[in-house]
Amino acid sequence: MMTYVRKNVERMQGYTPGFQPKERDFIKLNTNENPYPPSPKAVEAMKQACGDSLRKYPQPLADKFREAAAGICGVKPEQIICGFGSDDLLTIAVRTFCDQGGKIAFPYPSYSLYEILADIQGAEPIVVHFPQDFSLPDNLHNTGADLTLLANPNAPSGTLIPPKDIAELADAIDGVLLVDEAYGEFASDNCIKLVGKCDNIIVTRTFSKAYSLAGLRFGYAIADACLVEQMMKVKDSYNVSAPGIAGAAAAIEDQDWLHKNVGKIKADRTALTEGLNSLGFTCPDSETNFVLAQVPDNYDAEYLYQQLFENKILVRYFKMPRLEQCLRITVGTKSEVSALLNTLGKIMKGA
Amino acid sequence: MMTYVRKNVERMQGYTPGFQPKERDFIKLNTNENPYPPSPKAVEAMKQACGDSLRKYPQPLADKFREAAAGICGVKPEQIICGFGSDDLLTIAVRTFCDQGGKIAFPYPSYSLYEILADIQGAEPIVVHFPQDFSLPDNLHNTGADLTLLANPNAPSGTLIPPKDIAELADAIDGVLLVDEAYGEFASDNCIKLVGKCDNIIVTRTFSKAYSLAGLRFGYAIADACLVEQMMKVKDSYNVSAPGIAGAAAAIEDQDWLHKNVGKIKADRTALTEGLNSLGFTCPDSETNFVLAQVPDNYDAEYLYQQLFENKILVRYFKMPRLEQCLRITVGTKSEVSALLNTLGKIMKGA
Repeated sequence: MMTYVRKNVERMQGYTPGFQPKERDFIKLNTNENPYPPSPKAVEAMKQACGDSLRKYPQPLADKFREAAAGICGVKPEQIICGFGSDDLLTIAVRTFCDQGGKIAFPYPSYSLYEILADIQGAEPIVVHFPQDFSLPDNLHNTGADLTLLANPNAPSGTLIPPKDIAELADAIDGVLLVDEAYGEFASDNCIKLVGKCDNIIVTRTFSKAYSLAGLRFGYAIADACLVEQMMKVKDSYNVSAPGIAGAAAAIEDQDWLHKNVGKIKADRTALTEGLNSLGFTCPDSETNFVLAQVPDNYDAEYLYQQLFENKILVRYFKMPRLEQCLRITVGTKSEVSALLNTLGKIMKGA
Repeated sequence: MMTYVRKNVERMQGYTPGFQPKERDFIKLNTNENPYPPSPKAVEAMKQACGDSLRKYPQPLADKFREAAAGICGVKPEQIICGFGSDDLLTIAVRTFCDQGGKIAFPYPSYSLYEILADIQGAEPIVVHFPQDFSLPDNLHNTGADLTLLANPNAPSGTLIPPKDIAELADAIDGVLLVDEAYGEFASDNCIKLVGKCDNIIVTRTFSKAYSLAGLRFGYAIADACLVEQMMKVKDSYNVSAPGIAGAAAAIEDQDWLHKNVGKIKADRTALTEGLNSLGFTCPDSETNFVLAQVPDNYDAEYLYQQLFENKILVRYFKMPRLEQCLRITVGTKSEVSALLNTLGKIMKGA
């Protein structure tokens, strides 16, 4: 029966989203969701869009959003393409730039979706290991890949590669470089400024993290208008919803709300990192809304993960090389961070 | 510079959505939108979903919708996969079942997206011409295609192929048969009942037409659970929004609202067809919310399209073989249908 299915699809596993508990009494620090609500202006705009006008198709290119975002990002509307979350834009980029049998390069450890996207396309994944300090791997410059995917800041390390290193990478490679800035709003620098300088760079952004709109599914990419024009052919005709366009446009225009929430999360990120350090964890400097915490010697990360779970605190544990002794912990509210640190402290004391 | 782009993408044109005028005084009969508003229960559910809870990711598999739809459709939840409009499901099917270099078959004239989907995948499009009466083309049985795409009812003809003919087609072919029932709710029969009998049939449905939710972007496919399981690997992890899941679940549960609107549209479809016949047009029996009207001899379809446009009435004109002398006209409200018929009559009299 499975003769119907492409071989590359049949043999793959598929992406496993972070666990979403049905019980509401969990402290959820496992999927890097924002603990604060979205902009009230965005909520109002979405509610307005949820009415009789839904009988009509939305703007195919999301013009209203493109105009709003162009102003904020300092680019032209035609340099922006919208998608149903930034995952949609990653898929569009793969399908625009990489043939089946082509090559997709990305560092390890990083966002686990990249390898799955290569598998779905039937492309060869080229995995380049990060150095210990999560700086840009030298080997990424000469992979011969059609498309290079680079999360920056990186997940799950939380670390940032300076834009100048990324510009050098873009110059060195023959293919397209997609810089996945899903956590860009939490970082001290970003690569949007490179778009005007490198014709092969795509920067993707999402509303799922800093803008607190994971449930809405909206993302965008910024690139040379020639690249955008080609990606437009590959996207679904109407790949964003009317509430999505309205909500995302209002959210990006409410930069005050964004900065207030990002400010709180950065402060609590410092508190979380310091608390984890006090407990003996080692954490690379995070430029995101999560911290990758390497457990102290004599402790077992999976055990700590399970014990936290028993205590109704969810963090992310990856049973994968280089991450086996780490927990990835989302920066929640101040009280969630305190609860996590207190509970973790008790578990480690063997209480 | 365009060396970055896949050859199949570079040479293609991309899909052209129906024209959406900025002015609101147009009578829009060009994109098969529903003239009536969506279910108030769906609107309420969407508004409820547009709030602080959007900070969290939606259900990855849209369980709430799958359970509601399974009851209505008489299938199991695991036989349903949701997507961001049924276009998303078409793309997922292409990527699950057809390699680059594989074959995708479809009749002509039909939904113009099918050829574009083949182009994007780098697959060979196999175009099989409909007989004059738009019955199932014999040649579709022996194409050797990995995936056959069949709009039923068909667009832009509006005609329906009986499910028993489709079951025979499914038995005869080696690949997967996707029956695109975007207009299924307006038809006198459908193929959902075949899913339990043929392991290679996928039926897709949308909320854009009968449910008046084109702006929401939500569709679903019904298929053997083994096919659904493979398609799940290919879809984006979170390919429906929280407002989408809430709205679509409430809409499908409000079958009374659906039947009331579909009933009105069917009655006005009859009025539109009879009016067009009186003006000398020939129309195949429509099982959709639009009518394909072949203009009488001595008239030019493109001229009539343009004159209607001048009179602020939008219909769809396809400058393509077999359609050059046709207009595709959406069934609007009773008064929109009257306005169309009156204006068309005046134009044809040379007034």
